[in-house]
Amino acid sequence: MSNPTAAILIIGDEILSGRTREGNAHYLAGELVRAGIDLREIRVVGDVHETIVAAVKTLSAGHDHLFTSGGIGPTHDDITADAVAAAFGAPIGVRDDAREILARHYAARGLEFNEARLRMARIPEGARLIENPVSAAPGFSIGNCHVMAGVPNIFQAMVASVLPQLTGGAPLMSQSLTVMQAEASIADSFGVLAAEFPDLSMGSYPFVKDGAYGTNLVVRGTDAARIDAAMTKLCALYAEEA
Amino acid sequence: MSNPTAAILIIGDEILSGRTREGNAHYLAGELVRAGIDLREIRVVGDVHETIVAAVKTLSAGHDHLFTSGGIGPTHDDITADAVAAAFGAPIGVRDDAREILARHYAARGLEFNEARLRMARIPEGARLIENPVSAAPGFSIGNCHVMAGVPNIFQAMVASVLPQLTGGAPLMSQSLTVMQAEASIADSFGVLAAEFPDLSMGSYPFVKDGAYGTNLVVRGTDAARIDAAMTKLCALYAEEA
Repeated sequence: MSNPTAAILIIGDEILSGRTREGNAHYLAGELVRAGIDLREIRVVGDVHETIVAAVKTLSAGHDHLFTSGGIGPTHDDITADAVAAAFGAPIGVRDDAREILARHYAARGLEFNEARLRMARIPEGARLIENPVSAAPGFSIGNCHVMAGVPNIFQAMVASVLPQLTGGAPLMSQSLTVMQAEASIADSFGVLAAEFPDLSMGSYPFVKDGAYGTNLVVRGTDAARIDAAMTKLCALYAEEA
Repeated sequence: MSNPTAAILIIGDEILSGRTREGNAHYLAGELVRAGIDLREIRVVGDVHETIVAAVKTLSAGHDHLFTSGGIGPTHDDITADAVAAAFGAPIGVRDDAREILARHYAARGLEFNEARLRMARIPEGARLIENPVSAAPGFSIGNCHVMAGVPNIFQAMVASVLPQLTGGAPLMSQSLTVMQAEASIADSFGVLAAEFPDLSMGSYPFVKDGAYGTNLVVRGTDAARIDAAMTKLCALYAEEA
């Protein structure tokens, strides 16, 4: 049996203008090799509705999987969700499950859940959400198309959520813990704990918020009890709320 | 009047497998902005004849210019020239002008002009050669499609040859000098000389050959007499043959 095939669609004027050097395609290319999925094409297009719709139609029809990066943030030029919905002929609007994730995230951080941020809860009907352990706003999968954020560490976290589900493995569950410490200062202890749970996948995703360093720790696995056990140890280790 | 549009086609399995992180598209994106050409799409495909032919047809038809990178070297998987010829319906074979450039280059360096290297003289009928001041093997332009090497410093040198011709400027001429010294050790004196000829464009392209550092110095301009004057000074400065 031959490997499943894939394409990557990168969306963003900032790549075409040379302002940003794109790295997500290169990152995902490496992950796909490891997952046994053959990457056949990478395409970069600008923030133009018709162009994105056409590219999504062509690339999702021509491959087993299509991964997109970029254009799902809070600003007016973030038009990927609507374009993907159009490509799959799906209605799109603010969805309750996505709104709830965002509301909880902003409430916990004392941030205003404004109109712009509500935009990020626009998810096509029938799509499955992709977890974003870094900044909450979810990606989504519709049909064979997996829509992810362009910010590199969010993109990488979403790839970690999605990829294991595509390779025929058992459904993956995850829990996360936000620690307000720099990734480097917890790397050693986190590594020791990860070694105690070789059956789980543990990832760390650093961020900066209001000038302070923080790290989201994500535990992924197929056994809920094992994930609970790891989270209990993690919480004790860093003495913060999950 | 709106700007001319462009697409970039990157060809190579090594990009899709994640082995190589592509940088030519990012480089050219920046150059196109400066040249006033709107980049609309970047596409990366593998070393598959039909795929390259289809991409060249689509992208050259949909844009004022198409730039390709990769697949014009001496090995069996370098199939870009044949694919581009097929896309434009042009016959292709070893062309005398290209063979002569290569023969002169290899003879001067005591290198064998073997079958593999002769492959790099395969140029479609009607195409204009693009100068390669680094390693001689030329790129070419056919129709609105500009076919360049994937090795970054050769790609950049070819972009420098091609781009000024597309923006309605006077035809550009060039001469080059190979100096067997590291770029860093001649940078100061070369810079001083370049400042004496503000009407010319002078570029340096470092290479390593048999463990020794060398640099190709290229002088470009629209006035043949001025280029001759600069070359005379360059040859005197570095006391080598042009």
